[in-house]
Amino acid sequence: MYRLLSGLSVIEASSFVASPTAGLYCAQFGAEVIRIDQIGGGPDFRRWPVTARNDSLYWENLNRGKKSVALDLGRPEGRELLQELVRATGQFLTNFPADGFLSHARLAEGCPGLVTVRVMGWADGSPALDYTVNNAVGYPLMTGAGPDPVNHVLPAWDLLSGAYAAFSLLAAIRRREELGCGCEVRIPLSDVAIGTAANLGGIAEVLYSGQDRPRLGNTVYGLFGRDFVTSDGLRTMIVVVTPRQWSNLLSALDLGAAIAAVEDERGVNLATSDGLRFEHRDALFPLFEAAIGKRTQEELAAALDAGGIVHSGYRTMLEAAHDPRMVTDNPMFAAAGGNPSGFSYPAAGSFGTVPQMERGVPCPAPLNGQHSEDVLTGRLRLSAGTLARLIDTGIVGLPGKQHQ
Amino acid sequence: MYRLLSGLSVIEASSFVASPTAGLYCAQFGAEVIRIDQIGGGPDFRRWPVTARNDSLYWENLNRGKKSVALDLGRPEGRELLQELVRATGQFLTNFPADGFLSHARLAEGCPGLVTVRVMGWADGSPALDYTVNNAVGYPLMTGAGPDPVNHVLPAWDLLSGAYAAFSLLAAIRRREELGCGCEVRIPLSDVAIGTAANLGGIAEVLYSGQDRPRLGNTVYGLFGRDFVTSDGLRTMIVVVTPRQWSNLLSALDLGAAIAAVEDERGVNLATSDGLRFEHRDALFPLFEAAIGKRTQEELAAALDAGGIVHSGYRTMLEAAHDPRMVTDNPMFAAAGGNPSGFSYPAAGSFGTVPQMERGVPCPAPLNGQHSEDVLTGRLRLSAGTLARLIDTGIVGLPGKQHQ
Repeated sequence: MYRLLSGLSVIEASSFVASPTAGLYCAQFGAEVIRIDQIGGGPDFRRWPVTARNDSLYWENLNRGKKSVALDLGRPEGRELLQELVRATGQFLTNFPADGFLSHARLAEGCPGLVTVRVMGWADGSPALDYTVNNAVGYPLMTGAGPDPVNHVLPAWDLLSGAYAAFSLLAAIRRREELGCGCEVRIPLSDVAIGTAANLGGIAEVLYSGQDRPRLGNTVYGLFGRDFVTSDGLRTMIVVVTPRQWSNLLSALDLGAAIAAVEDERGVNLATSDGLRFEHRDALFPLFEAAIGKRTQEELAAALDAGGIVHSGYRTMLEAAHDPRMVTDNPMFAAAGGNPSGFSYPAAGSFGTVPQMERGVPCPAPLNGQHSEDVLTGRLRLSAGTLARLIDTGIVGLPGKQHQ
Repeated sequence: MYRLLSGLSVIEASSFVASPTAGLYCAQFGAEVIRIDQIGGGPDFRRWPVTARNDSLYWENLNRGKKSVALDLGRPEGRELLQELVRATGQFLTNFPADGFLSHARLAEGCPGLVTVRVMGWADGSPALDYTVNNAVGYPLMTGAGPDPVNHVLPAWDLLSGAYAAFSLLAAIRRREELGCGCEVRIPLSDVAIGTAANLGGIAEVLYSGQDRPRLGNTVYGLFGRDFVTSDGLRTMIVVVTPRQWSNLLSALDLGAAIAAVEDERGVNLATSDGLRFEHRDALFPLFEAAIGKRTQEELAAALDAGGIVHSGYRTMLEAAHDPRMVTDNPMFAAAGGNPSGFSYPAAGSFGTVPQMERGVPCPAPLNGQHSEDVLTGRLRLSAGTLARLIDTGIVGLPGKQHQ
């Protein structure tokens, strides 16, 4: 944990991926992030992967370094406590509906400086998830060799929405510090997805050409990039994005003369144009397949590394988990204990590295309700008697009853 | 454009996707983002998709609303001007190498408050791209039905790194405002990728189980979600994440009795557990295939909408570009002219919607060097004579020579 956001407190009422990652990034930068959890856990509290005793390895990694206040959000008194915590804190991160008891207008009553960041499905409040907005913008019909659509495994839209939510939170706080007024930033997954397609030129492309981009399998659109099979039957992805990489690649594979012949035959100069290297891939790929097919993956990697050419073999996640550069010797990871699951393993800190600051160790996720007492007495100044009554009546939850 | 970040200026020296999107998000929230471009454009200035006259629809969408100062960065004088602009501004966003003429230490000489956010390949400075870090963490071997790896088309790691970079920039500025000191935040694509695998529980999962997750095609891991084919031969993705959605889905498809029989036979209650619905998918999927196979996609959509169940047919990007909800009636888009390409089409504004503020219209990208004179005279106070000499000697570029 880096102390970039020390002094910032955020209330988070959220589930699934997008909104929890926004809180996670803030916590990893030193903010106090207080989750308000349904007693016993929200809809994603047991989401897979889980351990043998049904503790979620997913949940406990998305919620590292946060606090947990457990409330019964099905009852008015629990909902009011959440509303009061939001008002007492001033910053709120959620994926709850825009017009329910956690509407910004209702929460901002008596708290005009409130900043709310809300991840949504569709902009109109209709439900949507990563895997459905992805279909709606067209990526599954562009992925793989076809003809069937291929859905991504990585919840890319959730993740992008989460990081953008963290950015939006700080942007809205910055404005409040200058002007004094709060606001709500709504981030619909559907707008993140179609907006990204537009930002990458995809919407302009299909409207300009009047047709969809053809499916390219593992070939990267618009430049020289693809997977190739080495003599030992392994696949390596190679991607070229600069003239120097191209020139070094031809040297590394002894393809200078063969490519010059293609350039002569086609009347093009491939030295400086990503686009031409893509356009003439029908002539290029067989030459590269033959040259790469003569080398082992290890020989190929050594030649490419020497030329500063970007490449990577395909690995499984288990292989990545044991890789020194990625995990076991990576300073971003630390062997973290204290997890709710009881299982110890390398846990990730913030993606960002700050050379001028000390990187702390990743903290574990809280138990459900672990900070109920501290936060409710500290932040809302509830008396011991009131708190005891709330616990007795099941409005407030404490840990220790996780595995009844 | 929303004026959330009015008053913030950022110098951006960047190419490809990650770093430019960070600047784009800032510009869409009202920051002044000044790109420093190589005269004639950097390595991604002609990246596909391009128009007939080779203008990049990709570049002009990733750089909307920014300014462009064109310099010859191959010569010392051009490099010094960039360094001076960074120092005079105080905020810098880049994907240039960490140890070159744009190292944070060098830039921070005489400017201790400087905030640098740097997107990198590997953390050690080795080159990497989205498509290669993706291989290194294991996602292509989890995507699709196998056995071959399937690379994603969406540059998800670039995009996530870009949004995280925008967040990091504001976090580091916030710290400077409190403590007075600047810092550098380094964001390696490789750490974003492996850190995300860890955040989602993937690293813990493979270390706990000792094996990789099996490839599932379009089935979503750990819950009830998959694509199904309707009677008209179309595919619809359906994903269930709450008990109510499950119950409504069974009602919508008249599957209550059939599922109850499965529950009896297997001795499980599927009403409240995502995990059990995933575990017993071998029994569930045939029932859903039969029920959905009797309905047209339109009939299915109506029944699912009535029950608040999350679903989506597969569309191509061209279909999405003509869809009212996504693009043509979506307030995030506006028909934007003034593009460098000369082509007019709906352009996206910020993903975030702020109900309390007015959403301006997306601005076009700059021409290469369009703001060279304004910025160099305004920010560096160069005299007219000095500027004229820099232009004459080709250190500073102006627009108008784009299509020689």
